[in-house]
Amino acid sequence: MQNGKMPYQPKQTPISSLGEFKLIEHLTRPFSHQQVSTLKGVGDDAAVIHINDHHAMVVSTDLLVEGIHFDLMYTPLKHLGYKAVVVNLSDIYAMNATPRQITVSIAISSRFTVEALDELYEGIAAACQRYKVDLVGGDTSSTLKGMVISVTAIGDAHPAQITYRNQAQIGDAICLSGDLGSAYLGLQILEREKRIFLDNPAAQPDLEEQSYLIGRQLKPEARHDIVALLAKHRIKPTAMIDVSDGLSSDLLHICTQSGIGCRIIEEYIPVHTDTLEVSAQFQLPPITCMLNGGEDYELLFTVSPQDATYIEQNLYGIAIIGHTVPADEGYTIISRGGNEHRLSAQGWKHL
Amino acid sequence: MQNGKMPYQPKQTPISSLGEFKLIEHLTRPFSHQQVSTLKGVGDDAAVIHINDHHAMVVSTDLLVEGIHFDLMYTPLKHLGYKAVVVNLSDIYAMNATPRQITVSIAISSRFTVEALDELYEGIAAACQRYKVDLVGGDTSSTLKGMVISVTAIGDAHPAQITYRNQAQIGDAICLSGDLGSAYLGLQILEREKRIFLDNPAAQPDLEEQSYLIGRQLKPEARHDIVALLAKHRIKPTAMIDVSDGLSSDLLHICTQSGIGCRIIEEYIPVHTDTLEVSAQFQLPPITCMLNGGEDYELLFTVSPQDATYIEQNLYGIAIIGHTVPADEGYTIISRGGNEHRLSAQGWKHL
Repeated sequence: MQNGKMPYQPKQTPISSLGEFKLIEHLTRPFSHQQVSTLKGVGDDAAVIHINDHHAMVVSTDLLVEGIHFDLMYTPLKHLGYKAVVVNLSDIYAMNATPRQITVSIAISSRFTVEALDELYEGIAAACQRYKVDLVGGDTSSTLKGMVISVTAIGDAHPAQITYRNQAQIGDAICLSGDLGSAYLGLQILEREKRIFLDNPAAQPDLEEQSYLIGRQLKPEARHDIVALLAKHRIKPTAMIDVSDGLSSDLLHICTQSGIGCRIIEEYIPVHTDTLEVSAQFQLPPITCMLNGGEDYELLFTVSPQDATYIEQNLYGIAIIGHTVPADEGYTIISRGGNEHRLSAQGWKHL
Repeated sequence: MQNGKMPYQPKQTPISSLGEFKLIEHLTRPFSHQQVSTLKGVGDDAAVIHINDHHAMVVSTDLLVEGIHFDLMYTPLKHLGYKAVVVNLSDIYAMNATPRQITVSIAISSRFTVEALDELYEGIAAACQRYKVDLVGGDTSSTLKGMVISVTAIGDAHPAQITYRNQAQIGDAICLSGDLGSAYLGLQILEREKRIFLDNPAAQPDLEEQSYLIGRQLKPEARHDIVALLAKHRIKPTAMIDVSDGLSSDLLHICTQSGIGCRIIEEYIPVHTDTLEVSAQFQLPPITCMLNGGEDYELLFTVSPQDATYIEQNLYGIAIIGHTVPADEGYTIISRGGNEHRLSAQGWKHL
């Protein structure tokens, strides 16, 4: 090389060095908003578009890729269609809004038949029926290999009723609908049975006993009942998110965006008996499945102390698992043994 | 086999036996609408959601798959990002609406670097800037192989100003912005240069001479200027669509949905001199490229005879290429030689 100079090498940063959330932040940071109607862009469960003083639209979108998000060896196409819709509706409910319409785009290789797509769309139709949303558009195309599904959900709400991630206040109670960790263990069971089947195709799995956990993985529901219950009792959460990535990661989204800390109590977090039993089989601490499992699609939200008292005394199905604290007190979980641990997006570390 | 009965075989219909439009119709036919706000679902350039008497939202979505819709051997990532946005905005303009927000989801394999995504998002940002739309959301995930991009565009319009495909009237003039066939020939040039390069990697393609055709393929624009021009002159098309699949296919969408026929004149359809020259090199009749090429993203629309007279006398850049006729007169194109041919979605057949 002349003059000892290195030849020009463009910088090549692997995506994995950033992780999903930092990558999104990196890519979208240069974008500014030009439309006055854009109330909320990237960074919440859904975007919010201003219509007028009484009306805002809420939009959320997800992309599901075969081999990454679903495995057709153990996922019935009807369940896949249902779940693809439900996970998007869950984002709309997490804004305290009502979903109204969806678009569904699919790309498929030639290995899929019309009958296979009929099954997928039966599941989509079942979700539309149950959640009263209309399929209004989409796109159909080919892939060289595998299936891709993209769903966009559109909902609406009174602007004052919308709950963002960044409005939790210090001293709020942290609330959770339903139990955690079950969808993750459902996935572990399905993966185990897949391995057994691949080793010995004559093996007949008996999955009936674990129908709760497997159902949570394959056919989750969005908690519209919780949104309706809170509305009926005139409780507006200060912040809300759906638990898709795991309690740790999703609670930290609320905390970091609201500029606060949190203190949650392990024994207050609801857990199903099947989760306890099967986590023991897999030699996994149940709390690890609950904090990091993901795909539970429960609602995690904060409410004022007064609303928390009302919820404790009057409402069923909502657990108060802790409270928010000043940012400098950090993110803490108190274990069943009474020890304090630091909560992190990857799990929890001993202090 | 007992009793001569065949064992049960589930029906296996290949997707290819239906084609895209029939497949979409087949899959979405069982869906009914439950929301009163759904004004228009599947079957137009975009869905239409009622807000109030003065306001409707318009939503369109597209899924682009590497190896099917784009080839990264000759598509710069910046252009790809730009085009992915523009083709969706084109659908919003084709409803006579104004795009305001987009969501962009991407799925990528580990072969892509942060720098590669930066280029893609530069193109997305350039399109947002030019068309004054905000990026408000999306999703980022992995694939085992290749890239997938899903864009959803959201716009708005006064409900009375929205143009559907199914409202063309008998006797309307058929209008077209810009020229046709150029994007398709741009693609042919790029594919040819790719083959030459694969045969001989030392070959240096000189693409400068064909910058018009290649530009039409790699960096199309959406015709917001035409929508603005028509609005300025208070002309509302009776029906409108953007030319994405080719003039034949897209004109037939208007005709079949409006329940009418058409009669267009080959020599009235604008064609660029480069299109004529390069189609000769490829030994393709230029009319075939114009009718079936696709990806021109020009606007094709119908207007009343009075509006047609006004356009002819006062507006520049809009060609009147024929008129609509009763359905029983069919779909006809008059060739330069004066012969009548039947227009079909696959091209045109001699009568």
